[in-house]
Amino acid sequence: MFRERLQKIVDGVEGGVVGLLMGFDGLPVETYQSPSARVDLQGVALEFSLILGEIRQAAQTLEVGAVREVTIHAEKLTVLMRVLDQGYFLALAIEPDGNFGKGRYLLRMAAPKMTAEL
Amino acid sequence: MFRERLQKIVDGVEGGVVGLLMGFDGLPVETYQSPSARVDLQGVALEFSLILGEIRQAAQTLEVGAVREVTIHAEKLTVLMRVLDQGYFLALAIEPDGNFGKGRYLLRMAAPKMTAEL
Repeated sequence: MFRERLQKIVDGVEGGVVGLLMGFDGLPVETYQSPSARVDLQGVALEFSLILGEIRQAAQTLEVGAVREVTIHAEKLTVLMRVLDQGYFLALAIEPDGNFGKGRYLLRMAAPKMTAEL
Repeated sequence: MFRERLQKIVDGVEGGVVGLLMGFDGLPVETYQSPSARVDLQGVALEFSLILGEIRQAAQTLEVGAVREVTIHAEKLTVLMRVLDQGYFLALAIEPDGNFGKGRYLLRMAAPKMTAEL
């Protein structure tokens, strides 16, 4: 179920590479990568959750409320993270020339459905 | 000069609160906050540079090239960071209902000018 949802997101975005449903503790609930991708999913998942953890901690220090969404544009990869309830988050990695706006949209659409299923 | 540029960005964006020109080491080169804002600029600057440092480290581990831009949407604040050359970055904090797209645009426009002036 989760895997199908992740696949729909990744394959539905031009340049989509990896989709992850993760716990804040760094453990992936489900992962999917596009057939052409060769990504170290455990490594990616760990780094993403470390980043999000750091950001959530900073948000707490600065008292700016809960973190909802994080976007990172790097030279070779764009990463979108969307926080779900109950200690989970969605992450989507796309190529830098991929359709970032559509990725963001699909994550937003999927978030409430996947939260309800957790 | 830098202060005027930061002011133009912050005051030019609906909901603009804080603009920072920072070194990767966490030291602000210049800061500006809107007249209505009462932000602990040192604290904000430190947290932003810690986050960016963590993300740059993760990007190195994942070999995805240099980090260009980071966006964080929290409940009470949206933060945009844009990496300049030579170890500096621009940061802009806006209210959650502020004009995020315009903020991103103004940072992009200002980046090459400010880089040239560093």
